[in-house]
Amino acid sequence: MNELDIYERQGFAGDVGLGKHPALILVDFVEGFVDPAHFGGGNIRNAADASLPLLTAFRERRWPIAHTRVVYGEDGSDAGAFARKCPRLLTLTENAPISQILAPLTPRKGELVIRKTQASAFFETELMSWLTWHQVDTLVVAGCTTSGCVRATVVDGVSHNLRTIVVTDCVGDRASGPHEANLFDMGQKYADLMTRDEFLAATEELAQNRRFQ
Amino acid sequence: MNELDIYERQGFAGDVGLGKHPALILVDFVEGFVDPAHFGGGNIRNAADASLPLLTAFRERRWPIAHTRVVYGEDGSDAGAFARKCPRLLTLTENAPISQILAPLTPRKGELVIRKTQASAFFETELMSWLTWHQVDTLVVAGCTTSGCVRATVVDGVSHNLRTIVVTDCVGDRASGPHEANLFDMGQKYADLMTRDEFLAATEELAQNRRFQ
Amino acid sequence: MNELDIYERQGFAGDVGLGKHPALILVDFVEGFVDPAHFGGGNIRNAADASLPLLTAFRERRWPIAHTRVVYGEDGSDAGAFARKCPRLLTLTENAPISQILAPLTPRKGELVIRKTQASAFFETELMSWLTWHQVDTLVVAGCTTSGCVRATVVDGVSHNLRTIVVTDCVGDRASGPHEANLFDMGQKYADLMTRDEFLAATEELAQNRRFQ
Amino acid sequence: MNELDIYERQGFAGDVGLGKHPALILVDFVEGFVDPAHFGGGNIRNAADASLPLLTAFRERRWPIAHTRVVYGEDGSDAGAFARKCPRLLTLTENAPISQILAPLTPRKGELVIRKTQASAFFETELMSWLTWHQVDTLVVAGCTTSGCVRATVVDGVSHNLRTIVVTDCVGDRASGPHEANLFDMGQKYADLMTRDEFLAATEELAQNRRFQ
Repeated sequence: MNELDIYERQGFAGDVGLGKHPALILVDFVEGFVDPAHFGGGNIRNAADASLPLLTAFRERRWPIAHTRVVYGEDGSDAGAFARKCPRLLTLTENAPISQILAPLTPRKGELVIRKTQASAFFETELMSWLTWHQVDTLVVAGCTTSGCVRATVVDGVSHNLRTIVVTDCVGDRASGPHEANLFDMGQKYADLMTRDEFLAATEELAQNRRFQ
Repeated sequence: MNELDIYERQGFAGDVGLGKHPALILVDFVEGFVDPAHFGGGNIRNAADASLPLLTAFRERRWPIAHTRVVYGEDGSDAGAFARKCPRLLTLTENAPISQILAPLTPRKGELVIRKTQASAFFETELMSWLTWHQVDTLVVAGCTTSGCVRATVVDGVSHNLRTIVVTDCVGDRASGPHEANLFDMGQKYADLMTRDEFLAATEELAQNRRFQ
Repeated sequence: MNELDIYERQGFAGDVGLGKHPALILVDFVEGFVDPAHFGGGNIRNAADASLPLLTAFRERRWPIAHTRVVYGEDGSDAGAFARKCPRLLTLTENAPISQILAPLTPRKGELVIRKTQASAFFETELMSWLTWHQVDTLVVAGCTTSGCVRATVVDGVSHNLRTIVVTDCVGDRASGPHEANLFDMGQKYADLMTRDEFLAATEELAQNRRFQ
Repeated sequence: MNELDIYERQGFAGDVGLGKHPALILVDFVEGFVDPAHFGGGNIRNAADASLPLLTAFRERRWPIAHTRVVYGEDGSDAGAFARKCPRLLTLTENAPISQILAPLTPRKGELVIRKTQASAFFETELMSWLTWHQVDTLVVAGCTTSGCVRATVVDGVSHNLRTIVVTDCVGDRASGPHEANLFDMGQKYADLMTRDEFLAATEELAQNRRFQ
């Protein structure tokens, strides 16, 4: 028997379900997180490629969109504990090429761009109040890494009582072990797991209805 | 070559290091989280047993101590998204036997007891301001589960710029796969991993010095 | 010319407006905050009396309702900086008669009761995630004191991007000077000011529509 | 008898006291907040002038320094409820002359510059984790306006359990009524009030001791 059967016996992996007001967050899809010479590798590039149609759909449906970047100050004034664990993050400064959002995913006017220094897109950022203003009840998460900033964002999302959805083929990690382990944890405890096409199909009717309101 | 070597090449797993003012947090060591019929199993009981000498040492050293419990209202007024994923958490009410802290670890007067409904001990709780009042710079984490409330607490701890230490033999999980995977993630990105005895030895001098201040 | 005309010239006091999903928060209407021998006096009793029909209307309309109490631990474990400024707050313990909600306003099952130790009802409490779960976009504030916990709650409310409404005859203070000064500040910068009857009339149609959904 | 005597009878206005690790925050000393044609007027220019020696002292003592600016996006993506009350705040964009810090107070390398869109310098910003990293226990507040962003920052400061000091001649407002009313509220409930010279004298010994550590 698989040791993970205990999760089923204890009643985990309930459905948080879809609400009526989704927003998309693309976590850290920047140059340095696809490049294996910096923080990238594994299936991150594939996840970014798969996210473009997702982003396009959100734009067509006129649903709120947020992007995150990791951005540290040039002068080190905001370096702290996290930068002790991952010192090279400090190279992700405002104008560094590796901290720029991937060209195909370039934010458009009216989309929120969050600069952050910690793992979670919520931590000490304007994300939650922006979601509140847009009356969002469902947070759709794509980005990287699955075991890092995606996981941290998802845990905060569900804690804030957002229905949180991880788009499984639109999140990626530098190594497959942590990617899979964190998908498991999130699916059991924090978020519903859906492929991009499953999500888009499941919300097609919602998108149609909103158009005629 | 192990796919995880990429972490080393990318410069992860730096040392956050020990500060001068440690506090201990015991996460969710309650009856329901050791009992496999509820949310327990695996090595959680062992972690609780191993935590008693750690708790005793913090008491002798007069360092701040916090405990957490998951406590939901009897009337369901505080059930939200997390309770959709893990519905049985709602049985952890104030007076339910399964939500009581394990007898050997019973909090003493002056120790903080945090009631929480989310994974992280920091989320919408008084933990951070209490740590600030006690001038804590180092958060020592024991408890369960490694892949759940411990991980969430650790990510928030390092985000708050606390030097965060996971005491590896004092954290436990209902299954070994998620336990190991989350120790890996935390050690690479969010916290220093130390055994209980390593931590106690490394802070022995600090404890001596504080006694003579 | 009144020196306050400068606010008009600088374009303050815009309307935040009413949304579609109001919630009511009754701030600190407990025995000790109506009794002048403790923290009460002034027009606080009148504000509490005026709040009962407001509470009744929210119950009839089945809109979310939250109450707050100030509750400190018996053992002083959660005393901090605020308790240095206002030491007698520490007498507001869980079972102290002065920390009990006024009998006519007793919370009913399903209404949220927040225990807090700081001025704002949002600070390190579950309020915001609860409002998010209920999809609230408009926070209607009654309670005491206008210059203390009401003001702090209102500033956090608008910061969280809630449309925040101060019900002017349902908030009170121990002295009229701070009461009036804080109504001015809030009306200029943080909230719309409405009397109870103005609010109830302005939302009558909304309440009717919701009944037929 | 003055109606405000009730505060004394109820035991307010305790001393929060000075700690050992002060940081300075200069709130919103930008061009637009001294210019009466935008958001300035009253005694704000005087407060800015008086703050320069305070800033210089903190620099000489090598104590942490933070500055805040109100900065909204060019595209309106971050406009919310607060901007409904005070619409002209949206003109304070990154490169607008009125959102630039006053030249004499220009931040130096290593000083934290916080961009904010809400009243409090703490709200959804990196301030608190930065203070934690620097082990700050005492927050010294100068800036403008007394009844706006200073007050909001002070309430959050004491809530976070920082010993919060308002430097009375280094805070200013566009009108004297709200300035005085808010100094009263803060002194009674949230912060110790000191003049600049009182603060510098009271911490002279602390500064000397730190130099020899």
